[in-house]
Amino acid sequence: MDPLTRHIDEHQQRYLDDLKAVLRIPSVSTQGEHKDDCRRCAEHIRQDLERAGLTRTEVVKTKGHPIVYAEWLGAPGRPTALLYGHYDVQPPEPLELWKTPPFEPTVRDGKLYARGAVDDKGQVYMHISAIDAHMKVHKALPINLKVVIEGEEEAGSESLEPFLREHRSRLDADVIVVSDTSMRGPDQPALTYALRGILYTEIHVRGPKGDLHSGHFGGAVQNPGNALATIIAGLKDAEGRITVPGFYERVKPLTDPERRMLADSGFDEAGYLSEAGTVAVGEQGYSTLERATARPTLDVNGLWGGYSGEGSKTVLPSFAAAKVSMRLVPDQDPAELFPRFEAHVRSLAPPGVTVTVKDLHGAPPWITSPDHPMLTKARRALDRAWPKPAAMIREGGSIPVMAMFQHTHGLPAILMGFGLDDDNLHAPNEKFNLTSYFGGIRSAAYLYEELGRA
Amino acid sequence: MDPLTRHIDEHQQRYLDDLKAVLRIPSVSTQGEHKDDCRRCAEHIRQDLERAGLTRTEVVKTKGHPIVYAEWLGAPGRPTALLYGHYDVQPPEPLELWKTPPFEPTVRDGKLYARGAVDDKGQVYMHISAIDAHMKVHKALPINLKVVIEGEEEAGSESLEPFLREHRSRLDADVIVVSDTSMRGPDQPALTYALRGILYTEIHVRGPKGDLHSGHFGGAVQNPGNALATIIAGLKDAEGRITVPGFYERVKPLTDPERRMLADSGFDEAGYLSEAGTVAVGEQGYSTLERATARPTLDVNGLWGGYSGEGSKTVLPSFAAAKVSMRLVPDQDPAELFPRFEAHVRSLAPPGVTVTVKDLHGAPPWITSPDHPMLTKARRALDRAWPKPAAMIREGGSIPVMAMFQHTHGLPAILMGFGLDDDNLHAPNEKFNLTSYFGGIRSAAYLYEELGRA
Repeated sequence: MDPLTRHIDEHQQRYLDDLKAVLRIPSVSTQGEHKDDCRRCAEHIRQDLERAGLTRTEVVKTKGHPIVYAEWLGAPGRPTALLYGHYDVQPPEPLELWKTPPFEPTVRDGKLYARGAVDDKGQVYMHISAIDAHMKVHKALPINLKVVIEGEEEAGSESLEPFLREHRSRLDADVIVVSDTSMRGPDQPALTYALRGILYTEIHVRGPKGDLHSGHFGGAVQNPGNALATIIAGLKDAEGRITVPGFYERVKPLTDPERRMLADSGFDEAGYLSEAGTVAVGEQGYSTLERATARPTLDVNGLWGGYSGEGSKTVLPSFAAAKVSMRLVPDQDPAELFPRFEAHVRSLAPPGVTVTVKDLHGAPPWITSPDHPMLTKARRALDRAWPKPAAMIREGGSIPVMAMFQHTHGLPAILMGFGLDDDNLHAPNEKFNLTSYFGGIRSAAYLYEELGRA
Repeated sequence: MDPLTRHIDEHQQRYLDDLKAVLRIPSVSTQGEHKDDCRRCAEHIRQDLERAGLTRTEVVKTKGHPIVYAEWLGAPGRPTALLYGHYDVQPPEPLELWKTPPFEPTVRDGKLYARGAVDDKGQVYMHISAIDAHMKVHKALPINLKVVIEGEEEAGSESLEPFLREHRSRLDADVIVVSDTSMRGPDQPALTYALRGILYTEIHVRGPKGDLHSGHFGGAVQNPGNALATIIAGLKDAEGRITVPGFYERVKPLTDPERRMLADSGFDEAGYLSEAGTVAVGEQGYSTLERATARPTLDVNGLWGGYSGEGSKTVLPSFAAAKVSMRLVPDQDPAELFPRFEAHVRSLAPPGVTVTVKDLHGAPPWITSPDHPMLTKARRALDRAWPKPAAMIREGGSIPVMAMFQHTHGLPAILMGFGLDDDNLHAPNEKFNLTSYFGGIRSAAYLYEELGRA
């Protein structure tokens, strides 16, 4: 066994104690009464980063909660990694559902229970522990490292983008490293190489100038509720494809090798569908995993109009609306698609209604090629740390921070996370398996080594 | 001028004073604090009916507000008419919008302003005045008359059907007379010979067992919001026809003479559409008036599901629902159509959702042939009272009481009302034109005469 691995294994208790210490600080970013806890947590992490051996550690004030910054640039000629994480946590409520208090970290059955255990303090402390191990064993890191730990990830990361912009060149790097995602299973790690983007819209359909009596006017004028249904139904064809002209123009087709890779990535389709409590339905010609992560979608997120109370009210509503969002895949662009979507929605509207479409929110899709050399290095690191090879996965959702980094830095990124589906993220009894934590420390330590190799 | 007409014209002030007196009683049936006012109003009307010369007048207790009953059966061998009306009124709120207080009847510009002026106390007192005139002039009525004035019309008429059932044979008659509808214009009366029925349903679409994250599951499972839209959109074809199999099976086609009659009935299409504030859209091959009154419809009355708050929430909802109602025309039967509708809705549902359909409410359509001898007599009476001939009209809505009478008695009915579109029914500043009131008294008096002729 190499000295680095031995050091990590011999100091598991200390690395666990370090994590427990930061988990005791209730750094809930969305609750005003925890403002000072957030500040305290940032300072606590700065001290741990300094103790681990990083230089130029600081707590940077923002309009919201502070950002912790630290760096170590003692490996000239070697690559620079920008490590991102967050120290803020979700509110712990409802408290009565926790078996042990959320801010009193407790180990039961090899799992560490606390708010923030996995999201994201535990994953931040994998890296701090890995840095510490390198510094203790080698007095140096194998790469240059810049660390950004923000305190508003659960609150919209509003201070992050201005910070990234302001320090654009100081934060320059060769690769971004984020540990805030999941592994495939308790003994199989994963690298997330793609995220979907989003275009989130709201459709308003107006007909009569006020609600009408359905007896007096029904049949003679357009009903905005029926018209809305016609519009939404027309947005997809019978094969589940989205009918917006040009919608698929920029969609990179899945290659056969990638489809095989996804098929072999160990996706538990039965478990996934059982979690949803329903059956697989989607675009023809694609697997469930492809539909959920690598193909664009169009979903109603909400709809409303007219009378929804108890019993019957004979109203012909003057208005109906829906929230409709599309998940986008590389290289679709929400800004380019919105006007096409808007025009298509208008073209689907039957006569007698006025339709307006609002662009509520857009985020571009994100991808780093699974064959990118940085990801190859990450796979090698994971191969050393885990019994099973890393699954290469795409995520169906978005991580807004990745879109920000894409925007400000445009770097390849390694999304190497160690959460598990049963970790209760954002829920009571959040936990982090100790095997994941300790395996994560090894993985981070090996990642720095692999990134440092020529 | 005949003695009857002269008597009516000479006693206009007294008949107006009688109406004002009853309008001062705030008989609001849906407001608990007016329970005693309703009882007082019933007794007041009973006394007026007795004073007019009817026999066996009584105030009948019910589970709700009392029903006034009176009769005069002194014309053996002559037809018997069952006169229906209601003494209860809508709540007057918002009070601040009334120019004069709702229960202080006031004449301005030849119009009597008060809550209940036209709906329906004014129209009830046209008949009481007509009875009084006949009795004063002839000491008798030209027909047998049974009078039912209920106090819960604005509250669902819950006590009426039990009353009609219990007194089924005592209430037997040759024709029902109701004055609770509108005339075509200030100088043109109208007879309403048909009402649409209704089938009011609620469609529930369930998909995933709980709300899902649209990033994690979007594209891979059915979305109940999209599915609901597909169902609703499929319920009508591009020509505006309803696609439920067999839906039109029992629809009596409009005959050419009836279409000509409707076209000539003086319908103000421009005014009607301007009231709605929209354009004419509907089933191909029919006029706006036909679509609004003589053809069946299918309308969304409300729809809901998922997130409808501000901004964007990336939810894939587990549930979406709509209230959908159909207006029915003779001889459609809501009880027969519901299972067909339910089966059709299920057949339109895409895979991956469970659909349930609830039958919230049904009422059969109602029609008395415009050529029915009773209507011919009514037209003759109206021809004597007004400068223009009576318009024969169909109403697009339902009058629940007519379905009850249909059910318990199955008689032809004369719907002879004198309201105008600008009468502010159910709104502040309800009014009744005095020309309508006095013309209505003549019309009622002549109607009894015409009904009494061999």
